[in-house]
Amino acid sequence: MTAAERPVVLLLSGVNLAILGEREPEIYGTATLADHVARAQAAADDAGLALEHVQTNHEGELVEAILAARGRCVAIVINPGAFTHYAWALHDALAAFDGVVVELHISNPAARESWRQTSVVAPVATGTIAGFGIEGYAMAIRAVAHQLQQGPTA
Amino acid sequence: MTAAERPVVLLLSGVNLAILGEREPEIYGTATLADHVARAQAAADDAGLALEHVQTNHEGELVEAILAARGRCVAIVINPGAFTHYAWALHDALAAFDGVVVELHISNPAARESWRQTSVVAPVATGTIAGFGIEGYAMAIRAVAHQLQQGPTA
Amino acid sequence: MTAAERPVVLLLSGVNLAILGEREPEIYGTATLADHVARAQAAADDAGLALEHVQTNHEGELVEAILAARGRCVAIVINPGAFTHYAWALHDALAAFDGVVVELHISNPAARESWRQTSVVAPVATGTIAGFGIEGYAMAIRAVAHQLQQGPTA
Amino acid sequence: MTAAERPVVLLLSGVNLAILGEREPEIYGTATLADHVARAQAAADDAGLALEHVQTNHEGELVEAILAARGRCVAIVINPGAFTHYAWALHDALAAFDGVVVELHISNPAARESWRQTSVVAPVATGTIAGFGIEGYAMAIRAVAHQLQQGPTA
Amino acid sequence: MTAAERPVVLLLSGVNLAILGEREPEIYGTATLADHVARAQAAADDAGLALEHVQTNHEGELVEAILAARGRCVAIVINPGAFTHYAWALHDALAAFDGVVVELHISNPAARESWRQTSVVAPVATGTIAGFGIEGYAMAIRAVAHQLQQGPTA
Amino acid sequence: MTAAERPVVLLLSGVNLAILGEREPEIYGTATLADHVARAQAAADDAGLALEHVQTNHEGELVEAILAARGRCVAIVINPGAFTHYAWALHDALAAFDGVVVELHISNPAARESWRQTSVVAPVATGTIAGFGIEGYAMAIRAVAHQLQQGPTA
Amino acid sequence: MTAAERPVVLLLSGVNLAILGEREPEIYGTATLADHVARAQAAADDAGLALEHVQTNHEGELVEAILAARGRCVAIVINPGAFTHYAWALHDALAAFDGVVVELHISNPAARESWRQTSVVAPVATGTIAGFGIEGYAMAIRAVAHQLQQGPTA
Amino acid sequence: MTAAERPVVLLLSGVNLAILGEREPEIYGTATLADHVARAQAAADDAGLALEHVQTNHEGELVEAILAARGRCVAIVINPGAFTHYAWALHDALAAFDGVVVELHISNPAARESWRQTSVVAPVATGTIAGFGIEGYAMAIRAVAHQLQQGPTA
Amino acid sequence: MTAAERPVVLLLSGVNLAILGEREPEIYGTATLADHVARAQAAADDAGLALEHVQTNHEGELVEAILAARGRCVAIVINPGAFTHYAWALHDALAAFDGVVVELHISNPAARESWRQTSVVAPVATGTIAGFGIEGYAMAIRAVAHQLQQGPTA
Amino acid sequence: MTAAERPVVLLLSGVNLAILGEREPEIYGTATLADHVARAQAAADDAGLALEHVQTNHEGELVEAILAARGRCVAIVINPGAFTHYAWALHDALAAFDGVVVELHISNPAARESWRQTSVVAPVATGTIAGFGIEGYAMAIRAVAHQLQQGPTA
Amino acid sequence: MTAAERPVVLLLSGVNLAILGEREPEIYGTATLADHVARAQAAADDAGLALEHVQTNHEGELVEAILAARGRCVAIVINPGAFTHYAWALHDALAAFDGVVVELHISNPAARESWRQTSVVAPVATGTIAGFGIEGYAMAIRAVAHQLQQGPTA
Amino acid sequence: MTAAERPVVLLLSGVNLAILGEREPEIYGTATLADHVARAQAAADDAGLALEHVQTNHEGELVEAILAARGRCVAIVINPGAFTHYAWALHDALAAFDGVVVELHISNPAARESWRQTSVVAPVATGTIAGFGIEGYAMAIRAVAHQLQQGPTA
Repeated sequence: MTAAERPVVLLLSGVNLAILGEREPEIYGTATLADHVARAQAAADDAGLALEHVQTNHEGELVEAILAARGRCVAIVINPGAFTHYAWALHDALAAFDGVVVELHISNPAARESWRQTSVVAPVATGTIAGFGIEGYAMAIRAVAHQLQQGPTA
Repeated sequence: MTAAERPVVLLLSGVNLAILGEREPEIYGTATLADHVARAQAAADDAGLALEHVQTNHEGELVEAILAARGRCVAIVINPGAFTHYAWALHDALAAFDGVVVELHISNPAARESWRQTSVVAPVATGTIAGFGIEGYAMAIRAVAHQLQQGPTA
Repeated sequence: MTAAERPVVLLLSGVNLAILGEREPEIYGTATLADHVARAQAAADDAGLALEHVQTNHEGELVEAILAARGRCVAIVINPGAFTHYAWALHDALAAFDGVVVELHISNPAARESWRQTSVVAPVATGTIAGFGIEGYAMAIRAVAHQLQQGPTA
Repeated sequence: MTAAERPVVLLLSGVNLAILGEREPEIYGTATLADHVARAQAAADDAGLALEHVQTNHEGELVEAILAARGRCVAIVINPGAFTHYAWALHDALAAFDGVVVELHISNPAARESWRQTSVVAPVATGTIAGFGIEGYAMAIRAVAHQLQQGPTA
Repeated sequence: MTAAERPVVLLLSGVNLAILGEREPEIYGTATLADHVARAQAAADDAGLALEHVQTNHEGELVEAILAARGRCVAIVINPGAFTHYAWALHDALAAFDGVVVELHISNPAARESWRQTSVVAPVATGTIAGFGIEGYAMAIRAVAHQLQQGPTA
Repeated sequence: MTAAERPVVLLLSGVNLAILGEREPEIYGTATLADHVARAQAAADDAGLALEHVQTNHEGELVEAILAARGRCVAIVINPGAFTHYAWALHDALAAFDGVVVELHISNPAARESWRQTSVVAPVATGTIAGFGIEGYAMAIRAVAHQLQQGPTA
Repeated sequence: MTAAERPVVLLLSGVNLAILGEREPEIYGTATLADHVARAQAAADDAGLALEHVQTNHEGELVEAILAARGRCVAIVINPGAFTHYAWALHDALAAFDGVVVELHISNPAARESWRQTSVVAPVATGTIAGFGIEGYAMAIRAVAHQLQQGPTA
Repeated sequence: MTAAERPVVLLLSGVNLAILGEREPEIYGTATLADHVARAQAAADDAGLALEHVQTNHEGELVEAILAARGRCVAIVINPGAFTHYAWALHDALAAFDGVVVELHISNPAARESWRQTSVVAPVATGTIAGFGIEGYAMAIRAVAHQLQQGPTA
Repeated sequence: MTAAERPVVLLLSGVNLAILGEREPEIYGTATLADHVARAQAAADDAGLALEHVQTNHEGELVEAILAARGRCVAIVINPGAFTHYAWALHDALAAFDGVVVELHISNPAARESWRQTSVVAPVATGTIAGFGIEGYAMAIRAVAHQLQQGPTA
Repeated sequence: MTAAERPVVLLLSGVNLAILGEREPEIYGTATLADHVARAQAAADDAGLALEHVQTNHEGELVEAILAARGRCVAIVINPGAFTHYAWALHDALAAFDGVVVELHISNPAARESWRQTSVVAPVATGTIAGFGIEGYAMAIRAVAHQLQQGPTA
Repeated sequence: MTAAERPVVLLLSGVNLAILGEREPEIYGTATLADHVARAQAAADDAGLALEHVQTNHEGELVEAILAARGRCVAIVINPGAFTHYAWALHDALAAFDGVVVELHISNPAARESWRQTSVVAPVATGTIAGFGIEGYAMAIRAVAHQLQQGPTA
Repeated sequence: MTAAERPVVLLLSGVNLAILGEREPEIYGTATLADHVARAQAAADDAGLALEHVQTNHEGELVEAILAARGRCVAIVINPGAFTHYAWALHDALAAFDGVVVELHISNPAARESWRQTSVVAPVATGTIAGFGIEGYAMAIRAVAHQLQQGPTA
């Protein structure tokens, strides 16, 4: 299989994630977004997957990236940032995507403020990974690879 | 490092998990608990970790297994089953354990009944993995291995 | 049909029920648990059903009795006592049982404290009988017999 | 005891019950209201009880039937249909009746929509029977018979 | 002013009130509805008011009595019984009536069950009188008389 | 197609609607119920539909009109008035009707009191039209006509 | 009976009531507190009752006036002003008073803000009078007189 | 009247609506957005109205389109998609628009998830149309036309 | 304008504020109440306003100070301390005052315990200032001055 | 200090604020946004501060303006408009900014609709100013100046 | 140690407590407040502590007694009566006191009405003693003595 | 009285208490469970009471210990650990015990997480002691002794 033929995974980083490594390092760690994406890329290479990454602070651009992925990508890994907790348009866009969807958080929202307890993504996600810091992106890619080998969990 | 010297990870399977593979396979898959543990064992071997597994339907035995792990195990991976949603004694026991704690679910509770939205474990967990079926146990072991290499996420 | 060939009904009595007849007789009556079981046994004999009875104060033992009944018993009649209101593990265990499930209460929880308004069993029960005192166990057995003759209600 | 001397049980069927057997048979079964009443009548004959049946879609008529039963009937078996969940006037009428009161449902409201979780009748009922389909009316009559033999449960 | 020329007050007694004096006398007293109406009539005579009384257990008939009073009666005194707490149609009917509206209760709902804390009538009533037993009806008539002398309270 | 062969639409006007045009005209407008029905009739004529109209202040009569429409009418357009917000018996009756159901309000309940935010009809309606005053009845009939041409919306 | 021998009624006016007639006259009317008390005095004279009046803006002084009335006064008429809705100490003080207690409001709290829906006085009051403006104080005194003639309502 | 002189109606389609016809056709139907707009255009032509259509996945662009319509358009028909349920900025923008506002949904949100029960648009809308699929856009245009002929509903 | 002719602003400091500078300095700072008032006085001098200051731990005295200010003062600046969150009598007193009302807090209640999230003053305040420590009192006076120059904000 | 050396304050005006002066003047006043900014500029000049102003209707652009201000501006004054009540991404962006943060509202949200009671900004703000109309922007700038002189309040 | 040198404990009795022994003796017992204080005095003598007692029905006086105790008393034992449940000013005053604080109730509020479930004192108390009747005051003094010997609990 | 004749007090220590002294010492102190029990034993010796101690992590074993104490022990002192907040079976078991029941906590749950605010034990306890650390067990024993001397508090 050539690189061009590899299945494509879309990695989406939402609002405020561009400053990872600078913002509240006691919660989010010191790795930059580039560091995180590099880990995801390495994991994708290992798994024979192509990776596309989009970071945006605009809910509408996340929606459009998801809609454009339909029929073209096999999976979406999404860390929406604070959009996780109220931007229901992401829910509807992901519901229209028929591949694997992994919800990813660097910290563990369940141990934080109450408004972080709601997730608009979880009801339409294949699975969720939260709290593993720098390792999370790689874990998510490997989880996608595993899902693709098996098809949906019974 | 000899096998006896390997750091020990305690894998805890809670209530009703003994019948995995038979119960609601459209939700939990067809793999048995033995299959899941075998996956975890293989991942532990790869990571140079020893694995101990306990399955019990008794909340008190889970508490005692956690308390006995203090000072002896480096991490706990716990899938409490339905205890996840009301057995606060697990919360206090895990709070007394100073190693890595990974909360693990085979299905995705966020997409199910409302009483499954509460987790007594999440507030004291390092991270959570949910919805990846048979792959979940292996992902959890690899996450533990990564955490041990790095120490706690900043 | 010999006695050994009779379909088996599992009668489960949960926490605090061993002291029936002594505890709050103005609510629960003066009949002992043995009296109740005798009524159930007589009704089972009339209906050509075998009866097994288990009383335990341990949630885990109730779960295990339910799991062990799968494929061996045709019905479960369960009076969980106070477990009714919070022990969701019973919910999951009963959901894994494919026979008739009857929820039984000697008093009428709906007319008592608010924490008795929730039932973890009701969502997975075929039916509920509450408030008929000594007659309740016999009514439950007869209801099981009737269900078995008809198959599930359309 | 002549037929005219038999104690009278009032069987009340509330709103929408006239179309039983046609409406949502996957929930309510295929038996018609006449079938249900016939079962109740047979059970009443066995128990030496007279049976009167009233079906009405009008809350006010149910109230009046209950008020008229005071001092004349020994028991009321009532399946109020959707009135169960909001028509508090039934509560007050039944509170003024000093005989046995049995709340009866063909399906199991606890396993359905949240607005069906409230019962205005339960706080003033001797007991509740729910979820046993065609068998429910007969069970209710037998429960009345048993209550009458024993007096109120201690 | 002749009797025929007297302003008409409509006295409405709602559901279950026909059995006043028999029902829960420790709460509602031993006076019958006729006793209550006689007190109201005497008070009306004193005040130069004509009185019409309607008792019904049907919400729709209360609505129609209210609608028919528009332009014909100067005031409505209403004790809706249990309808007070959920029958919002009474709210809309009374909102369409432009005379004095007095809400009347024989007992004091605020000291009873929580579902009696809501009143659909209060938001459209000129005033409320509760808890004065046999005296309540007379008090309500005198309050109407006073309101008519003064016009609406500033 | 003769007039007698036209598909029949049942137009139901609930509690307090008989006084339309007189009641709170700043909310409900000055058109009478007859005006509204005339608009509906004209729209029905245009669409080749027969129209039957029932206005009643009695919840039980609305239920019975709905039940009687089963198998005889192709659609129900219902403006329940205040019953919209608590009379769950209408929900169950409409759930038993297999034609088109349109919920209709002259004003916009969403912009009024909180107790008007609940609709017992919406969960079983094909669609809802609210806030268009005199035009609403005609819009509803045309919507029915369109639905009948197309069958249920995918 | 001499004036000195007349039974004493304590009339309590709570916080902010000293400015009646000036404050929000569209809600509370233009009568001053002195006008209200004069009406109460006249009604007391008619009924052969002595009247004492206390107005205070201090919750503690209301409590002390209530405690001092025990064994000395036959009734308390209390309009606590805003204290009605949160000052539970009034509840306990009134619970220690064994005479008639009438809760009085000039306006109708049920038609105002939600925080005015709670009354700390209602659970320990004989009855409540609300919304009759200037007439309310006289009504309350007459209600007291009636209660004293009859004893507590059954 | 020339085309250029026709009153302008702004038709706004919000987030995720560009994929209509592809997304969950069992809920939203198979018609594309272009089909829907064509229906609206035809209705506008019939009514002598000009139509402008804007689709965007960006909340800010919807706000700006609304603000720019002030003083230039006579009406706005808006289907905000998932923005309906949380994007309160639309509420404020529409509140600043003084023409007719119609809220439009293809499906019936009241019959779906609880988070779809809130509408930020309804409190500032002239009216709402929901659940009529392909017919909805045309119905909305005709409703606008009717409103413009009459002025605001009394 | 002589000093005696200056418009008077009433500065009210409520419960526990006498110990400012000693109590929880990490929240409230080290400035004493005298320091705060001095800042307010200086700001008042700059603005040509007279200042009166009252500190009291008694809710009733705050009420009386507010009532006495009617017609005599042009504005009230009030920091009620903990009374902010439950003493609704302050709400009613301030509602009777027709000048400018400024709610003032030294710390930011919105970032503290949940019971500090309710304010009885906010609904009747012209504006609120919170979280500026020593600067808050001066800011409030300047805000009053500005309001007086402009009249109420449209 | 030259103008170029002045500390920079970022003034952010959120959604719908471009039409200030036209929208609901009875709530927001008649001053335009330019008028408001001019007041802020004058106050900044007085305080020796530079001012930058950004108005946008896009949540993502507000986030990016905040992130870009880190290390470059000493303070942010933000009036988010309706974003205040749900756009949690602003919370996270402001949490990453280490200067002074002032939340500013022209009207007083606490006295308006319930959905305006939540503020995503308040938990991360140094202080809040609300309800002072045209004076608010100047007050905010002076508050910033004072904070800069003192450092954070103890 | 002379009597004058003994550490001083302030015993505070709040609203309605002056009538202990007369009020609801089935709940509060027959001992008078003087009896209770005598028990406390004896316990204080045994422990070498001086005791001051204040009873007041005024929240403000309780606050002032607490503030005046700072730096002068080593402990406060407080039974606030009904103030316990809403008078948050006591919370703030006690938070400013740095000695031992014991919350004391004669009855057990947790077993009574729901409004007695909230305690404003508990969050700032060293400990709570409830339900021990006449023994409670002595227990509280002994608890203070023990705390003083040990310093704060780790 | 010989030791064997002394009344027996059952001291129950629930889940996770075996590790007292090691777990979160900043909350629970450094004393071990043995230290606590020794204090209780000494207090029991002083009071002429025998003491039995049971520690278990199993809810069922606590229930059984309570049931077995009926008729044999005069009092139960129980610190259920986290079971306090959800294990309602303890409530029912204690309700069946007719001696003195003291609820004991080392820390003060009212000052901690919200899920610790509910107590299943408090409604059936004679009294509660919380927050006194090492002194708590001895206080509880002395409270029992006092209760036994007096009988139940009036």
